[in-house]
Amino acid sequence: MREYRVLIIGFGNVGQAFFELLNLKKHLLGINFIVTGIIDRSRGLISNPSPGVISEAHTGKLLGKKVVLDQIPGFIEESNADIVCEFTDLNIKDKGEPAFTYLSTALRSGKHVITTNKGPVAFHYDELMELSRKYNRLIRFKGTVMAGTPSFNILDLLPGTRVEYFMGILNGTTNYILTRMYEGLTFDEALREAQELGYAEADPSLDIDGVDPALKAVILSRVIGWRHRFEDVEVQGIRDVDVKRHGDRVIKLIAHANADRVYVKPIPLERGGNILANVSRNLNALTLKLDTLGEITVVGPGGAGRMETAQAALTDLMYIVNHVNYLGR
Amino acid sequence: MREYRVLIIGFGNVGQAFFELLNLKKHLLGINFIVTGIIDRSRGLISNPSPGVISEAHTGKLLGKKVVLDQIPGFIEESNADIVCEFTDLNIKDKGEPAFTYLSTALRSGKHVITTNKGPVAFHYDELMELSRKYNRLIRFKGTVMAGTPSFNILDLLPGTRVEYFMGILNGTTNYILTRMYEGLTFDEALREAQELGYAEADPSLDIDGVDPALKAVILSRVIGWRHRFEDVEVQGIRDVDVKRHGDRVIKLIAHANADRVYVKPIPLERGGNILANVSRNLNALTLKLDTLGEITVVGPGGAGRMETAQAALTDLMYIVNHVNYLGR
Repeated sequence: MREYRVLIIGFGNVGQAFFELLNLKKHLLGINFIVTGIIDRSRGLISNPSPGVISEAHTGKLLGKKVVLDQIPGFIEESNADIVCEFTDLNIKDKGEPAFTYLSTALRSGKHVITTNKGPVAFHYDELMELSRKYNRLIRFKGTVMAGTPSFNILDLLPGTRVEYFMGILNGTTNYILTRMYEGLTFDEALREAQELGYAEADPSLDIDGVDPALKAVILSRVIGWRHRFEDVEVQGIRDVDVKRHGDRVIKLIAHANADRVYVKPIPLERGGNILANVSRNLNALTLKLDTLGEITVVGPGGAGRMETAQAALTDLMYIVNHVNYLGR
Repeated sequence: MREYRVLIIGFGNVGQAFFELLNLKKHLLGINFIVTGIIDRSRGLISNPSPGVISEAHTGKLLGKKVVLDQIPGFIEESNADIVCEFTDLNIKDKGEPAFTYLSTALRSGKHVITTNKGPVAFHYDELMELSRKYNRLIRFKGTVMAGTPSFNILDLLPGTRVEYFMGILNGTTNYILTRMYEGLTFDEALREAQELGYAEADPSLDIDGVDPALKAVILSRVIGWRHRFEDVEVQGIRDVDVKRHGDRVIKLIAHANADRVYVKPIPLERGGNILANVSRNLNALTLKLDTLGEITVVGPGGAGRMETAQAALTDLMYIVNHVNYLGR
């Protein structure tokens, strides 16, 4: 059985779920994935973690050697991992740092990388692609858009097609809030419920002001080949939405882009005329308009669930394994 | 630029669309696909066809050397093609023949094969897989389920997942008829309209009696790993459907399977509770229930359009090219 050494950076909900999923599925996948290290700001540096690390991780206490943030790039560089999986939190203010430093350090030191963090991908797309080419290592980031539900990677199944536009519901929290508002709740009540269910953060502004779907729209655009940047996205959130004002149409927070323009804003959709109008609760959806097929749509869970995002990283991991096998690198 | 020789069997709507699409996209794909031959029952054997063959093909007259059906396997065997693309018509009575003979002859003589014909795949799945292994050549058949819209091949993007069940609208003709019946037409009026639009055949029984989606349900089941055969499918068509009888629920012709059971029948679905309830006109859709993600759904055009099915064959072609490159075979 082939062997791959994996280093995990960030051991919160997603990192832990990934560690569990990897142990659960590696025999099925026929690959001996060995997690040689876990680095987490609060839980420390854990070398060669045993499966039991999960029950301890839930407590949040220090599990390994205490780590100072500045040391992390050095640990990555010196690691013997084949693949670095980066699961740290989004940081908008610092434009995806320190995650970008972790990813670029990993690529430079000959490791393939996986991230579920939108920041480094949305803010440093060109640099990451350039490093990937230069050091002949892969970077994958499926989990940044719609968790494990196929989104931009569905284009791998559609060779030769040209994307004319996309249109999506890329944020589960706001979709949940809007759904509940149609069921009679006020915005504040729906938000509170979303927070209680763990869909929304204590500070929910990234979701309800449309920043999260804007970052995802940038990532989708870049994968498709359009050069939109975060600053180019016209963004309007859902704070002022009046769900009663549009008759039979239903308001959805829509991310839309074509080669010329990208926006995130609440749009009223015909219930009968549009699949997206019927995507409710915290589901996500993406419609791609293709030259040869017309519109195709994928609907599924977004990023709210830990296991759904871990599946995205597993998908990326197997992509890398298959390509490494093929390419002999 | 890498070069691949392609032999086309069957030059009706799909074969012609594929020939056009190949010429349109091959530069974009960076592969020099050369169609070295076309074999068609009525249009004859055409060696090294020029792009102009398309305008002549529309007339339906004999374009090449007259062909007797029995000669076709010999032509396939002697062809210097790398890849055989089989676009002949479905034949239920003869359990996918003569297409199965064409495909097995191609595999035995060292060619990769693509088919859009449900018959040989649904009736001879094990034999085709065994030939593929034995002769170390690939067989791809994306176009048999939902044309170019990702269906079973979406599982390539979901490694390690287990499918618990699927549920789909796999026939565009019946979905169109049901949609129009909800808009006030009688069954007969809706059927006539579907025929006028080219969605339904002159003999529409394969669609409206559920045979077409039953074959697709078998193919999906086999790809997933379940061993359902065509004879195992409980099939009920839409001839006796009364669309007024189910209140707010909407009737769809649903193909459903899990490890134990497979059926095709009209099922009333809650408009608000199910994505499939809102898939209308001649669109197709497939919901997969996965252990790590829950339900994901793909919606898009099915097999009615010639270009949509040609895209499926192009997807298969590029899959083969990529794997041949990797595997060196």
